[in-house]
Amino acid sequence: MRIGILTSGGDAPGMNAVIRAAVRVALGNGIEIIGIRRGYTGLINIDVLPLTRDEVSNIVHTGGSILESSRCPEFETELGRRKAAESLAHQGIEGLILIGGDGTFRGGALLAEQTEIDIIGVPGTIDNDVYGTDFTIGFDTAVNCALQAIDRIRDTARTFERVFFVEVMGRRSGFIALHAGMAGGADSLVIPEEPLGVEDICRRLIEGHRLGKKSAIVVVAEKENPGYSYQIAQEVTRITGFESRVCVLGHVQRGGNPTAADRVLGTVLGAAAVEALTEGKKGHMVGMVAGKLLYTPLRDTWEKKKELNPRLRELMQMLW
Amino acid sequence: MRIGILTSGGDAPGMNAVIRAAVRVALGNGIEIIGIRRGYTGLINIDVLPLTRDEVSNIVHTGGSILESSRCPEFETELGRRKAAESLAHQGIEGLILIGGDGTFRGGALLAEQTEIDIIGVPGTIDNDVYGTDFTIGFDTAVNCALQAIDRIRDTARTFERVFFVEVMGRRSGFIALHAGMAGGADSLVIPEEPLGVEDICRRLIEGHRLGKKSAIVVVAEKENPGYSYQIAQEVTRITGFESRVCVLGHVQRGGNPTAADRVLGTVLGAAAVEALTEGKKGHMVGMVAGKLLYTPLRDTWEKKKELNPRLRELMQMLW
Amino acid sequence: MRIGILTSGGDAPGMNAVIRAAVRVALGNGIEIIGIRRGYTGLINIDVLPLTRDEVSNIVHTGGSILESSRCPEFETELGRRKAAESLAHQGIEGLILIGGDGTFRGGALLAEQTEIDIIGVPGTIDNDVYGTDFTIGFDTAVNCALQAIDRIRDTARTFERVFFVEVMGRRSGFIALHAGMAGGADSLVIPEEPLGVEDICRRLIEGHRLGKKSAIVVVAEKENPGYSYQIAQEVTRITGFESRVCVLGHVQRGGNPTAADRVLGTVLGAAAVEALTEGKKGHMVGMVAGKLLYTPLRDTWEKKKELNPRLRELMQMLW
Amino acid sequence: MRIGILTSGGDAPGMNAVIRAAVRVALGNGIEIIGIRRGYTGLINIDVLPLTRDEVSNIVHTGGSILESSRCPEFETELGRRKAAESLAHQGIEGLILIGGDGTFRGGALLAEQTEIDIIGVPGTIDNDVYGTDFTIGFDTAVNCALQAIDRIRDTARTFERVFFVEVMGRRSGFIALHAGMAGGADSLVIPEEPLGVEDICRRLIEGHRLGKKSAIVVVAEKENPGYSYQIAQEVTRITGFESRVCVLGHVQRGGNPTAADRVLGTVLGAAAVEALTEGKKGHMVGMVAGKLLYTPLRDTWEKKKELNPRLRELMQMLW
Repeated sequence: MRIGILTSGGDAPGMNAVIRAAVRVALGNGIEIIGIRRGYTGLINIDVLPLTRDEVSNIVHTGGSILESSRCPEFETELGRRKAAESLAHQGIEGLILIGGDGTFRGGALLAEQTEIDIIGVPGTIDNDVYGTDFTIGFDTAVNCALQAIDRIRDTARTFERVFFVEVMGRRSGFIALHAGMAGGADSLVIPEEPLGVEDICRRLIEGHRLGKKSAIVVVAEKENPGYSYQIAQEVTRITGFESRVCVLGHVQRGGNPTAADRVLGTVLGAAAVEALTEGKKGHMVGMVAGKLLYTPLRDTWEKKKELNPRLRELMQMLW
Repeated sequence: MRIGILTSGGDAPGMNAVIRAAVRVALGNGIEIIGIRRGYTGLINIDVLPLTRDEVSNIVHTGGSILESSRCPEFETELGRRKAAESLAHQGIEGLILIGGDGTFRGGALLAEQTEIDIIGVPGTIDNDVYGTDFTIGFDTAVNCALQAIDRIRDTARTFERVFFVEVMGRRSGFIALHAGMAGGADSLVIPEEPLGVEDICRRLIEGHRLGKKSAIVVVAEKENPGYSYQIAQEVTRITGFESRVCVLGHVQRGGNPTAADRVLGTVLGAAAVEALTEGKKGHMVGMVAGKLLYTPLRDTWEKKKELNPRLRELMQMLW
Repeated sequence: MRIGILTSGGDAPGMNAVIRAAVRVALGNGIEIIGIRRGYTGLINIDVLPLTRDEVSNIVHTGGSILESSRCPEFETELGRRKAAESLAHQGIEGLILIGGDGTFRGGALLAEQTEIDIIGVPGTIDNDVYGTDFTIGFDTAVNCALQAIDRIRDTARTFERVFFVEVMGRRSGFIALHAGMAGGADSLVIPEEPLGVEDICRRLIEGHRLGKKSAIVVVAEKENPGYSYQIAQEVTRITGFESRVCVLGHVQRGGNPTAADRVLGTVLGAAAVEALTEGKKGHMVGMVAGKLLYTPLRDTWEKKKELNPRLRELMQMLW
Repeated sequence: MRIGILTSGGDAPGMNAVIRAAVRVALGNGIEIIGIRRGYTGLINIDVLPLTRDEVSNIVHTGGSILESSRCPEFETELGRRKAAESLAHQGIEGLILIGGDGTFRGGALLAEQTEIDIIGVPGTIDNDVYGTDFTIGFDTAVNCALQAIDRIRDTARTFERVFFVEVMGRRSGFIALHAGMAGGADSLVIPEEPLGVEDICRRLIEGHRLGKKSAIVVVAEKENPGYSYQIAQEVTRITGFESRVCVLGHVQRGGNPTAADRVLGTVLGAAAVEALTEGKKGHMVGMVAGKLLYTPLRDTWEKKKELNPRLRELMQMLW
């Protein structure tokens, strides 16, 4: 048996732990495993390398993806996917492990319609916005990265009377903002799930000031518009008169050595993906839900909406 | 209503997140909350302070415990516990939140036999060896701390041909060793749960050498005897001829800012402990199992044995 | 003898090491030392506390300033400074240690004209733009903080073809940008000292692309206009067609535990400041130049311009 | 012109910054540069690779050495060195850059006696015990690593009454112990330069206890006998009755991403080494003393003794 593995979409710390686990479990079971470079681009162009034990030595602790990633507009066309299918057939690849987010899985599902290939998805994205797993690989690292920034700002926030806006990643979801904000003791969140207006933020800041808080930290999910914290900050300063300062973390959150949790999760899911293929499973993403492996149809991963933990949202209100 | 809160036993990063959440939820519900300093010692000697919103500001990110901890031999006597009970009655404290490990809960259970006090335990220990919760507060931080040490050694391990022994905490259990070892890509584990002899380690190291590995990392749980990695290392060098180096992390693992996961867990359990007391629950520890709050009778927390994740142990063998 | 100590202006990691050293050396020499809170504001309002050995225990490793800082417009008036002088006389303070940057020293120099007080400055600012010392306290920590962000971006930069803009602090000087950029292997710098136009950056990026570089990192000093990297990025994308991403570190750079170098420097200068006062020195800032203590007239600290190391600037060009 | 470059002895963070700078400056000056792998072993066995711009991309931030290191007993024989000389002649290498400590330079000096080769040394060792440079490359990273461990222990030290022994590297010198101990606020040092007996330590600990200190941190340089802190700790406990705990950092200090200071120093010295060779300098080590490049005859680097900063030693006594 011969399988392929690729990473696609935005890279996430812990992807290399997935690759390492998949390679070692595959080889241990007599399965050949081919690394496809640069995501669907490498699939179409047959930019591949056979993966060996050595190839995945000393990578478990590294950020990024040794297979690199890319966006591939060609793959969004039927012609592109036909080329990809031919490439797989040409190489004799019978199973394919896709590490990425919902965009990656959409592409994979379309590919599966045009070919006999067995596909298993592994959720690797810092955003955590994939249905079918409690946490995605890379999320814990990104949250801890954002948290370190908040902690550092807290050191200086005690000294001056100011409102600090910390903008974190999260296009369609506030997972990073909620977890980092709660862990960092933030005063307020601006997240896609909550249509909180600038007036609401101001009301809270003024109330905090009345209670004796010297400064405040607001965590903002970037949504579609990185840098838009500057507008919020200006508005808040105009309304409240409080000085404001902005920090936009951006891609800093994508890098760095993965945390223990992301490496352990990546290892478990990477191994499970190979075993799923050997057992004939296909068209599913393997995730970890309530401590157990769970296989979710690929389509559900983007059609169903993963909700923020309502208890954490409630506690953000209570603990403030 | 008036409740007390204390930390006892070895301190763990994240304990302050528990205290902060408990205080803010208590005050938000009109409950007075008294901090008892230095664990059972402060309970006996009435070394206490009323906790306010301000008292728990700017502590969520700090290691250690603002209430400090201690060991209290006096509390192990019936007389000592009677004094503690009188102290509680004297102060009008009706409910008590205990943050610690199984030793803390044993003491609490004995106290509950001598008094009407309602007790709720919160699992705070880096060792993770408490039944009734998937993870204890402080464990994730300790694992990441050990992992950073392994990562650093990996940088230098690539250069020289050596066996590195990294000794981590874990008196009766190998949780830290297993998680840090898996995340760090260790070659071998020495843990209380597995009667692995020096010969077994040597066999694996020699086999690894044969496969082309230049160096190896063995993670050792300290058991009852911190520093005993030196003996293992000597034995291994004697048998295999490989040079060896030892690193004993010790209390480094107890300190440092808590990770996001430990703060979120501490926050959720701290809030739940207060709510449990308001709902009349008692004699239980509140933990998080499979993503849900679970209340376990205090006695079970030490009588039942929490097992290492068998899948992770299996993967340690397969991935090597 | 009785002396005072205060921190003023933007806080910098390592200020607490200065305070600790000054207090312990003062007390060891039988000198009383008074902490003045919130900079010149606390001086005018007599918001002070006597500092003891205990008061400065367990602070050497912390960010921020235990004495807090503030900006004090009142002190900029002659009336405000007269109040400050009276406050000093009233408290019997004969010598004053000022920890801060050039704004702090300007204020101190004006105060010295109106009073008999002996003043010694200690350079504490992350910007490093103070004449009379090779490095200011806090600079090394800020550079390492910026560097960690660059390193993290590098992980992800290898995967996608993009230009990353990392905006660091530096209103009038490019010290942080130059040191972090060199240490981080940045492709280009935008600093106040160099009137590099957007066209120059684009030329370099295009040349790098031609040489096979997949991505590029540009480090930008924020100047007077935090967030202005967004404009540069837009311009660069418009001209070159390269995708761009922006990260604005902001006050993250002010916080965090100080590095070893900042604590050692802070300790040495804090001790020297007390000794200078006992020896009757005044109106000077104590700095470290070429490994030796140097006393520079306060006026020189802002009138003379400290230059970037020309060799480092040259190497930025050569190493690229 | 064609030159070679190698790393030898214990590896040190920042060595890769030296290699990167040397390669880019060499290529920029039309000089071919050959990487010799595994130190003198690769020189004898002609295990080499030509270094290109790309080869040194994305390495400036990494620990260890891309050229790897080794100990080479063969090179200690005249025959071995003759082979090395022949290897150099065979490859047409006219100049050689040696990155390492005094052992590396001794070998190089002996080699220079048997051949016409021009040799320039670059001080790369975490121990800082090389005459002719204020700091060696890797020292700042090692100190900050040890410091983080001390900081973490401080968190837990506040909670329990104990003496903590933190053993750091330093065979013949106490540089790491002194700098990390001062920055970490340690109570006492055990270093080769000071024949401090266990009784002296105990006297200080008892005095500290009397002054109200709850716990103490003693930093120990490992000398020739890693792990010997356990003996000291036992003795101290026997004499004072204080509980003690030990942490042995070991090779953790050799790894990790280099700090900004180590990368900047490595970059400057790597560039200077190439320029020295082009200017016909030889038989010298290039170092940085008082902020200036200094060339020291190789022999002096090990014959002259570099002293600990006496002011820092004095301050350790005063600040306690």
